[in-house]
Amino acid sequence: MTTEPFAAVDIIAAKRDRQQLSPEQIDWFVDAYVRNVIAEEQMSAMAMAILLNGMNRAEIVRWTQAYINSGETMNWNKLGRATADKHSTGGVGDKITLPLAPLVAACGVSVPQLSGRGLGHTGGTLDKLESISGWRAKLSPAEMFDVLHNTGAVICAASESLAPADRRIYALRDVTATVESIPLISASIMSKKIAEGTGALVLDVKVGSGAFMKTPEQARELARTMVDIGRDAGVETRALLTAMDVPLGRSAGNAVEVQESMDVLSGGGPSDVIELTVLLAREMLDAAAAQGASPTQDPADALGNGSAMDVWRAMISAQGGDLDAPLPKSKFTHTVIAESGGYLTRLDALGVGVASWRLGAGRTRKEDIIQAAAGITWTATHGEQVAAGQELFTLHTDEESRFASALESLHSAYSIGELSEVTERLPLVIDRIV
Amino acid sequence: MTTEPFAAVDIIAAKRDRQQLSPEQIDWFVDAYVRNVIAEEQMSAMAMAILLNGMNRAEIVRWTQAYINSGETMNWNKLGRATADKHSTGGVGDKITLPLAPLVAACGVSVPQLSGRGLGHTGGTLDKLESISGWRAKLSPAEMFDVLHNTGAVICAASESLAPADRRIYALRDVTATVESIPLISASIMSKKIAEGTGALVLDVKVGSGAFMKTPEQARELARTMVDIGRDAGVETRALLTAMDVPLGRSAGNAVEVQESMDVLSGGGPSDVIELTVLLAREMLDAAAAQGASPTQDPADALGNGSAMDVWRAMISAQGGDLDAPLPKSKFTHTVIAESGGYLTRLDALGVGVASWRLGAGRTRKEDIIQAAAGITWTATHGEQVAAGQELFTLHTDEESRFASALESLHSAYSIGELSEVTERLPLVIDRIV
Repeated sequence: MTTEPFAAVDIIAAKRDRQQLSPEQIDWFVDAYVRNVIAEEQMSAMAMAILLNGMNRAEIVRWTQAYINSGETMNWNKLGRATADKHSTGGVGDKITLPLAPLVAACGVSVPQLSGRGLGHTGGTLDKLESISGWRAKLSPAEMFDVLHNTGAVICAASESLAPADRRIYALRDVTATVESIPLISASIMSKKIAEGTGALVLDVKVGSGAFMKTPEQARELARTMVDIGRDAGVETRALLTAMDVPLGRSAGNAVEVQESMDVLSGGGPSDVIELTVLLAREMLDAAAAQGASPTQDPADALGNGSAMDVWRAMISAQGGDLDAPLPKSKFTHTVIAESGGYLTRLDALGVGVASWRLGAGRTRKEDIIQAAAGITWTATHGEQVAAGQELFTLHTDEESRFASALESLHSAYSIGELSEVTERLPLVIDRIV
Repeated sequence: MTTEPFAAVDIIAAKRDRQQLSPEQIDWFVDAYVRNVIAEEQMSAMAMAILLNGMNRAEIVRWTQAYINSGETMNWNKLGRATADKHSTGGVGDKITLPLAPLVAACGVSVPQLSGRGLGHTGGTLDKLESISGWRAKLSPAEMFDVLHNTGAVICAASESLAPADRRIYALRDVTATVESIPLISASIMSKKIAEGTGALVLDVKVGSGAFMKTPEQARELARTMVDIGRDAGVETRALLTAMDVPLGRSAGNAVEVQESMDVLSGGGPSDVIELTVLLAREMLDAAAAQGASPTQDPADALGNGSAMDVWRAMISAQGGDLDAPLPKSKFTHTVIAESGGYLTRLDALGVGVASWRLGAGRTRKEDIIQAAAGITWTATHGEQVAAGQELFTLHTDEESRFASALESLHSAYSIGELSEVTERLPLVIDRIV
């Protein structure tokens, strides 16, 4: 005899028929799935019904909470300091987390950041950091607390005990064409961030060819949904919609992005990376004010005076990273020369991202091994003047056979022409959702 | 390394995005599922996408053909006679197959009928026939041929080797709320009928409270879809939309429906059962004319002159049925008396069907055991005059505890009132789709 309060098929049918699911139905559906009372095929049908018929705010918030309730949650009360975190929906050359976490810590707010690995053409923060000799992504909760307590920031892998329902459902969505659902994307991201216990959260929702969301409209809907979920869970949450039509900075890959991040922490680096890092840091500090925290300095100053770099060094060292060891260099490089002078009329994020991926910087399947030294660096970006014969791009890989397909993607990703032919690009910050 | 020509997730995504699937995509998707290259969760997501986004005629025809190609097919060429079959989408008191198969055989066209079992409030032909002592539903292909050859008709269980893809997909649909899809219903029904090898096919698509299709519009769409599939597969196919707002005849259950069928074969029985049986028989004979068959007599005559009854006796005996043994009687009966005189202003098929099911005549789960003697008989139907104190209904069951819930359903299923209060009912034949 069953003592279950619902039948899975009735709840799937309700969503199929565009009915609003009750809180009790949602709680039971996710919990019963984790208990293996609901089968994989039933969750798959539900995911497709959610993708096609949607969920309203109350349903999404509850669905997210059910993910959180499926596992453990963390909190940082013992720390006695305000906390803030940032999540990016992923882009090409998006190394912002690396300078941002120590920067915010240097301004007086702690950053407990759980990050992920890359899949496809967008890179993963953990993959990038692992190019630092000895650096460990996997920390126990006690280790995570210690690093955070002692240095002000920590970037590590999410424990499998946080939102395990999402982990299983994500794997299902990946094989059932149900990834592209704003309710399910939002629940997946927000359940982990809320379970992580951050006091404030800033979402960097990327827009453009290199992002998951191709248009500002889609990105705005995703941002709105996630901000609502965060607020309803008591986390001060804001979102910035930022440009991902052009890759960020001058590098895409792993070690090459660590290098660029350190350039920024040293007070140099590309202007767009500096600008976005400082903007996001200010937003995080502002969001953390709800916890009674006042910034000890402005982020722009903390990049200039070396205090952010100090936190970076402490944070990386605390996780075993050896910053005195040189970053890995690829076995092979290939340089692309400008055939004519003029202006870089476009530089497409997706094309650059795919090229970097093909060089070995990213994964096609979760089990793929990535190359720490693989990636692309460039000397000019969208709208900038180039001279005939200038070294435009350098491709890095440990496998020479990868150049051909990477170049194929890269060559279609840029053009050189007249100043008047420079294409319009998205503003770095498109919108702010609070 | 995979040598598969497609990735399942791409085909699911195409249907999710309302694209038309190519013949090659459909063939591969169904075949790969049967080969376990496509997982249950992927087929579930696809089923939900098909349910919500639909399929056009070309897709449905190909999807059906892919089901057929997943298993064996039968043909009756060696028989040297025209064949015709009928399929009903299921209703309450719908015993028509029982008199119809021998009737058509008595008029010169062979009837190779593969039937199913009941689930829910509608009965199954095999369940009804199994109330005859010794009758066997399961025949080998050779036995099926022999019964058909020697008696002109055979009603038996479908072999598991016919359209096995549908069998597996049907089981999935049952637990994933994806039963209610006209493309998937049509493919399921038609794949088995086409694989069965009948030369002509008449579909009895039921409409009304006791049917799967509640409105003529839904039923017409289902009928149109199935007729198109049949035609495209070279089977002369027609459909009648017939009434299922009121239960057929004067009995619902198992043995009670066999008895009523034999009444019809003896030249008696309720007028609606006679009328529908004769109409469907004429339609089957007409459809079989495309195979060069001319009826040897009119069905109405064959009921009167005993020739249909002769085929029935031969057919049942050939499958081990002992027609000299009495049909089973229930351990308990309960009679419902008319409390006042007047007219039966309504008699609802669903209410009667649920009552019969609750008495033990039907299944809730596939593994449930049904009672051969359970069911309901009635003395008056919709629109007929009744006297105060008249025995209206007799309930039959082997478990006395079942009466209460059955009566609850039955009491809400009829009313007695003035002649002017008699509700409108559907005409017996609502439409004909050719």
